[in-house]
Amino acid sequence: MTDLREPPPTGAAPAGVSVLAVDVGGTKLAAAPVHPDGRLGELVTRPTPDGDAETVWSALAAVVTEAIGDGAVSGAGIGSAGPLDAVAGTVSPVNIPAWRGFPLRDRLAALLAGRPVVLVNDAVAGAVGEYHHGAGRGVRAMLGMVVSTGVGGGLILDGRVYAGNTGNAGHIGHTIVDIDGDPCPCGAHGCVETITSGPAMVRWALRNGWSGAAPTGVALAASARDGDAVALAAFERSARALAAGIASAAALCDLDRVVIGGGVARAWDLLEPPLTASMGAYAGLAFVRRVEIVRSELDGQAGLLGVAALVHDPEMA
Amino acid sequence: MTDLREPPPTGAAPAGVSVLAVDVGGTKLAAAPVHPDGRLGELVTRPTPDGDAETVWSALAAVVTEAIGDGAVSGAGIGSAGPLDAVAGTVSPVNIPAWRGFPLRDRLAALLAGRPVVLVNDAVAGAVGEYHHGAGRGVRAMLGMVVSTGVGGGLILDGRVYAGNTGNAGHIGHTIVDIDGDPCPCGAHGCVETITSGPAMVRWALRNGWSGAAPTGVALAASARDGDAVALAAFERSARALAAGIASAAALCDLDRVVIGGGVARAWDLLEPPLTASMGAYAGLAFVRRVEIVRSELDGQAGLLGVAALVHDPEMA
Repeated sequence: MTDLREPPPTGAAPAGVSVLAVDVGGTKLAAAPVHPDGRLGELVTRPTPDGDAETVWSALAAVVTEAIGDGAVSGAGIGSAGPLDAVAGTVSPVNIPAWRGFPLRDRLAALLAGRPVVLVNDAVAGAVGEYHHGAGRGVRAMLGMVVSTGVGGGLILDGRVYAGNTGNAGHIGHTIVDIDGDPCPCGAHGCVETITSGPAMVRWALRNGWSGAAPTGVALAASARDGDAVALAAFERSARALAAGIASAAALCDLDRVVIGGGVARAWDLLEPPLTASMGAYAGLAFVRRVEIVRSELDGQAGLLGVAALVHDPEMA
Repeated sequence: MTDLREPPPTGAAPAGVSVLAVDVGGTKLAAAPVHPDGRLGELVTRPTPDGDAETVWSALAAVVTEAIGDGAVSGAGIGSAGPLDAVAGTVSPVNIPAWRGFPLRDRLAALLAGRPVVLVNDAVAGAVGEYHHGAGRGVRAMLGMVVSTGVGGGLILDGRVYAGNTGNAGHIGHTIVDIDGDPCPCGAHGCVETITSGPAMVRWALRNGWSGAAPTGVALAASARDGDAVALAAFERSARALAAGIASAAALCDLDRVVIGGGVARAWDLLEPPLTASMGAYAGLAFVRRVEIVRSELDGQAGLLGVAALVHDPEMA
């Protein structure tokens, strides 16, 4: 574990030189330099392509190269969709099927002429970002969540990152809330992600007669705001599974706060009311009921800021 | 957090003097002196009585007094059924309804003429006992579970106790595995405990036509060993919810091992085969599948040995 409130060890990153923060998700790839004062430089993003492992890598390499531009970086941190193997430096993101055991850390290090690369779960990176700079400030035990194409999470416990031996702690999207539930691409059944993710909401709504402008979460949210009953029910169902997952995480980890970001959380007006109502059904014990559920303050930038913070701390890898 | 592999701070407990280890559960109350070499002295137990808060306290005070006998103790550690408030020193065990916010730590300290008393969740104590002396040796991340009248747990993460701010981390019995499940005495719905606990198994079997020698888990296990189909199905159902809860905990906490003790685990021959089978349905990701599930080696003594270890470490309280 890494005490985040300790100053970064001197010499971990040369003063005055930027590091590169990289975010790998099932929907998009992003990178930005992080200046020595913590400010993010210009962000470069592009959609995560379909295709084989090298197609996805080529897209990421282009994003990285453009983000560095004419500057120089002393090293990089990657927040990647999980699961990953922090020891081997490989990633197998559920929503990037072409990457299974892909050696992301070493490939990026080679692209950066051997400069050091730190690899963490993207939701761990997001949790660290919120803890330092956003909606997680001031607590000791928090779960930072991303509810989007997938559902991920990262834990800060006793004021430190808890990543686990393999770097995969915080995978709340693959906790089981419906013992009789549908199969999940992860191989299990009834995972939070099978109900709560954006694509799961859209699939359920379409099966139940919703016909929006497009089969997307944005269109589903628009329908819900127009009062469409099926679209509203899709948000309620998603929030209910999310509440069960959060109550479970709070029971297990004695959490102070849960910070939710990602595309689905951008519809906070639609998500928050049924989420609060469902917590009444799934949070029983007093220490579980006390958990605060708040929206991300940094949203898309949480992961990049968290990765930047972690690059300064070699203990984290 | 407390690094369990550090030696106990000198002066925390006078050398040569025993400490008292106390175990408070919904079924029984127990206490024993722990000699300076770590050996448990003579164990005193009695059933947890029904009745009001003072009736339960009187029974515990009698157990404690008998366990001390003519000896002397320098302090005590209590492992209590949860939930509890580690800051206030109060306990509200789900299965001891007469105790709600009961000031157990201060009452025991008063009985011991002001000697120091450490209060932890009983399953945390059990996890520490297994980690030091039993089936948890050699791992970095483990969940110690008790499957009995209730279902409890305690976490060791990165080789340290993780108890949480309120001392309640590890409450796997109140993680939600059945989003449409029955109400739980904790106030939530579909908790692992509503399906997996001994009383839940017996209730389900009786509702489904089982008629054993007595409405107890021991009789249910005997029927299952005789081939009774309903009794066998009760074990399968219990194991299935247990597997979902364990898979969730492994996804969230990147666990190496889960150690299971308690009355239901004593029927390991009946529990283990359906538990292993169900892990196939609920453990999808590779880092979740790697979790080892083993039976407690210390069983009833894990909590007392763990409490004894923790009494030597004031950081834990």
